[in-house]
Amino acid sequence: MLTDPSPGRSLDAIRQRGPLVHNITNLVAMDLAANALLAIGASPVMAHAQEEVEDFVSLAGALAINIGTFTPEWQDAAVSAAVQALGNETPWILDPVGCGATRFRMDNAMRLLKIRPSLVRGNASEIAALANNALGTGKGVEATMSVADVEAEASRLASETGLVVAVTGEEDFVTDGQRALRVAGGHTLMTRVTAVGCALTAITAAFMAVEEDVLAATGHALACMAVAGETAGKAADAPGSFRVELLNALYRMHPGELDERAAIQWLEADA
Amino acid sequence: MLTDPSPGRSLDAIRQRGPLVHNITNLVAMDLAANALLAIGASPVMAHAQEEVEDFVSLAGALAINIGTFTPEWQDAAVSAAVQALGNETPWILDPVGCGATRFRMDNAMRLLKIRPSLVRGNASEIAALANNALGTGKGVEATMSVADVEAEASRLASETGLVVAVTGEEDFVTDGQRALRVAGGHTLMTRVTAVGCALTAITAAFMAVEEDVLAATGHALACMAVAGETAGKAADAPGSFRVELLNALYRMHPGELDERAAIQWLEADA
Amino acid sequence: MLTDPSPGRSLDAIRQRGPLVHNITNLVAMDLAANALLAIGASPVMAHAQEEVEDFVSLAGALAINIGTFTPEWQDAAVSAAVQALGNETPWILDPVGCGATRFRMDNAMRLLKIRPSLVRGNASEIAALANNALGTGKGVEATMSVADVEAEASRLASETGLVVAVTGEEDFVTDGQRALRVAGGHTLMTRVTAVGCALTAITAAFMAVEEDVLAATGHALACMAVAGETAGKAADAPGSFRVELLNALYRMHPGELDERAAIQWLEADA
Repeated sequence: MLTDPSPGRSLDAIRQRGPLVHNITNLVAMDLAANALLAIGASPVMAHAQEEVEDFVSLAGALAINIGTFTPEWQDAAVSAAVQALGNETPWILDPVGCGATRFRMDNAMRLLKIRPSLVRGNASEIAALANNALGTGKGVEATMSVADVEAEASRLASETGLVVAVTGEEDFVTDGQRALRVAGGHTLMTRVTAVGCALTAITAAFMAVEEDVLAATGHALACMAVAGETAGKAADAPGSFRVELLNALYRMHPGELDERAAIQWLEADA
Repeated sequence: MLTDPSPGRSLDAIRQRGPLVHNITNLVAMDLAANALLAIGASPVMAHAQEEVEDFVSLAGALAINIGTFTPEWQDAAVSAAVQALGNETPWILDPVGCGATRFRMDNAMRLLKIRPSLVRGNASEIAALANNALGTGKGVEATMSVADVEAEASRLASETGLVVAVTGEEDFVTDGQRALRVAGGHTLMTRVTAVGCALTAITAAFMAVEEDVLAATGHALACMAVAGETAGKAADAPGSFRVELLNALYRMHPGELDERAAIQWLEADA
Repeated sequence: MLTDPSPGRSLDAIRQRGPLVHNITNLVAMDLAANALLAIGASPVMAHAQEEVEDFVSLAGALAINIGTFTPEWQDAAVSAAVQALGNETPWILDPVGCGATRFRMDNAMRLLKIRPSLVRGNASEIAALANNALGTGKGVEATMSVADVEAEASRLASETGLVVAVTGEEDFVTDGQRALRVAGGHTLMTRVTAVGCALTAITAAFMAVEEDVLAATGHALACMAVAGETAGKAADAPGSFRVELLNALYRMHPGELDERAAIQWLEADA
C-alpha cells in the first residue's frame, strides 16, 4: 500500500512493477483492453478457459471480469475466477456491460456480484439496473441516464453490499457507501470508440494491483483515463485517430503530469 | 420511412435516432464493425449467446449476421436471432463470409437464407457460391471473381428468393430481382484491411433501420462506405493509416456531402 | 522452392502468389494477425470450427496455430487441423503462447508439438518452458528470460524433435538443431503493442508457404518484421501510432529494401 496515495504514484508503481492483470472480457474489447494495459505499463493476459482461469488468477495482481459477450461457459469460468480471487484476496472488478438489456446479462451480473468484487464499474444505466435488479435501462450497452441520476442508487448499492461502486460518464462518481469522490475530465469522443469503458475497467484493475485502497485506486484510474482522453482530444477530432492517440497518451503520461491534471474531488473524508 | 430517400437523409436519420444494431459477427470483425457503427452514429451491440439473442433482436432496429467464424453454437444462436427478426419484422442482413470455401459455411449460409433475410451482401465469389449452392469459388474469404461476372446470378437469386442481393467489389451491384442499382467509388486499400466488408454489412444494417426500402437503404450504405473509402484513400496510402482514416471519414461525413458524392446509378425505375 | 533464397525474394513471392494462410489464433490477435497478413500480400482466413478446419487446411498454403486463448474445443480443432496439415505436407507453425503459465497451456502445446509442426516460435520463456515441460517461466504471456538464456535449450529441443525452433526477442535465434541463424533489428515498442508476436507467427506462416526451407523462411519472416519494426519506430514514438505504422511498413516494404536491411546471420552453413 502506498503511504501517500496519488494518481501519479500509482501510475509510477504500475510502471515499476508491471502487474499481471487477468482479463475475462468481451470479444470486442480484447484488443483495446490489452493495448491500454500495455500502454500504462501493466502486463495483460486474456484467458477464459475453465481449465486455467484459477491458475491465472493465482499469478495475477488483479482480475477484471467484463460480461459483455458472455455465454454460459464464459460465465462459469468467470465465476470460478472470481471465487479464486476472493479466496486469494486478489482484487477483482466487475464490469456489468449491458446488464439492463437482457435477463441473461442481469443474472450473470447478479451472480458475480455475490462473489464480492472489490469494485463494480459501469455506466449510469448499468448501475441503475444493477442496483434495482431491473431491466429496461440503457440502449443496448450504452447509457441513456446521467451519472447524477444514479448517484443515490450507487451509494445505496455500495452501502448494502459493502463494495465500491463506480459510475462513469461525463463526470464519474465513485463511492464505498461512506466515502465518495468525483472525477472530471475526459472527452466526448470516448463514447464514439468501442470498448473505451472496457479498457477503463482493465486499467482500473491495474491500479488496484498497486494501491490497496480500492476507492483511491479507482479514482486514480479514472483520472488517468480522463487525462488521457483530454490529451487525445487535443490531437484528434475523429474516432479513428482518437483511439490511436488515446493509447499514445496513456503511454506518454508522466506521473507528475497525472498528479497535476487529475481532477479528483473527494466528497467526504480524504483517504 | 423517408418520403424522399437519399443517402444523406438516411445518414442524418442514423445520426438523429442512433438505432441499436445487433451484430452476430465474426471474431475478426468485432472491433471494426462496432467502431464503424459508432462512427456513423449508430449504437452497436455484439451478442451471440443463445440465452439473449432474441431479447437483443427485440430491442434492435436491425440485425446483422456474419457467418465468418461460426461454430455450430453460434450458428444456432444466429438462427434463433434471424427467426426472431423475421417474426418482429425487424430488417436483417446475411453476410455469407467465405461460403464457397467449406461445406460447413455453405450449409450455415443456406440455412439462414431460408429465414428470409432482408438483404444478402457478399463479394462476387460468395454470391456465386450461394446462388449455385456450390463450393470452389473464391480464395478463402476473398473474391476471385468480379462483380460483373455474377450480376446475372445475383438477379436470379433475388428473383427466386424475393430477397435483395448485394454484390460488392470494385463497383457494387444490388438487386431485388426487379429493380437494380450500381454503386461506384471506394478505394483499393479497402481490400487490404481486414473486416471492411464485415463493417460494411454492419453499416448497411444501420441504414436498413432508418430506411424501409431495403434496396435504397443498401444503396445508401454502400455509397456511404464508398465515399468514406475515397476520403480515406486521399489521407492515407497504406493500410494501417487507411483503417484509421476510414473511421475518421465515416464520422466526419456530412449528409450533404454524401448526397453530392454518392455514385448510385439506378438501373430500372427510380425508387 | 526458391533457388536463391533471400528475404526479398520470399516477400516478392508472397506478393505475387498471395498464399492463403489458415490461422487458428487467439481472440486478441485476430485483428492484427489478419491485417499483417494482408499488409504483406497474403490472404488470411481465421477458422476454428471443428467442422471446417480440415477443409481450410487443404485449401491453405500454410497453417498457423496459436494457443493463446484456447478452450478444449479450440484445442481439439487445432489438433485436427495440425493432423491434416501433417498429412497434406502443408507447413504449419506452433505458437505456444504462455505455455509456461498454466498446466492447461503446457498440455495443449505438448500435444500439438507431437504432431510435428514445421516450426515452433515463442519468446524465451515459452521455449524454455516447452523444452523442459516445466511451468513457472515468464510472466503470463510475457518473457522474463532473454533469448541468449535459452539458445542451448532451443537447440536441444530442435535436435530431439527434428523441428525448427525460433526464439524471438531483442535478437532472434532460430535453429533446426544443426544449422542456426540470428536475426537482429526490431524496436522496443513491439513489446508494448499486443499481439505483435502472434502477428509475427502469422507472417512466418506466409513465408513458409512460399519458401520450402523452413529455417530460411523463418529467418526471412523475422527479418521482415524486424525491418518493419525499425521503420515504424522511426515514424512513431508511442504504441497507438506504432501499431498503425507497423502495418504501413509491412505494406510499403520493397523486396530490395528488405534484402538490404535484413540482419540475418547464419551461424553454421549457408543454406
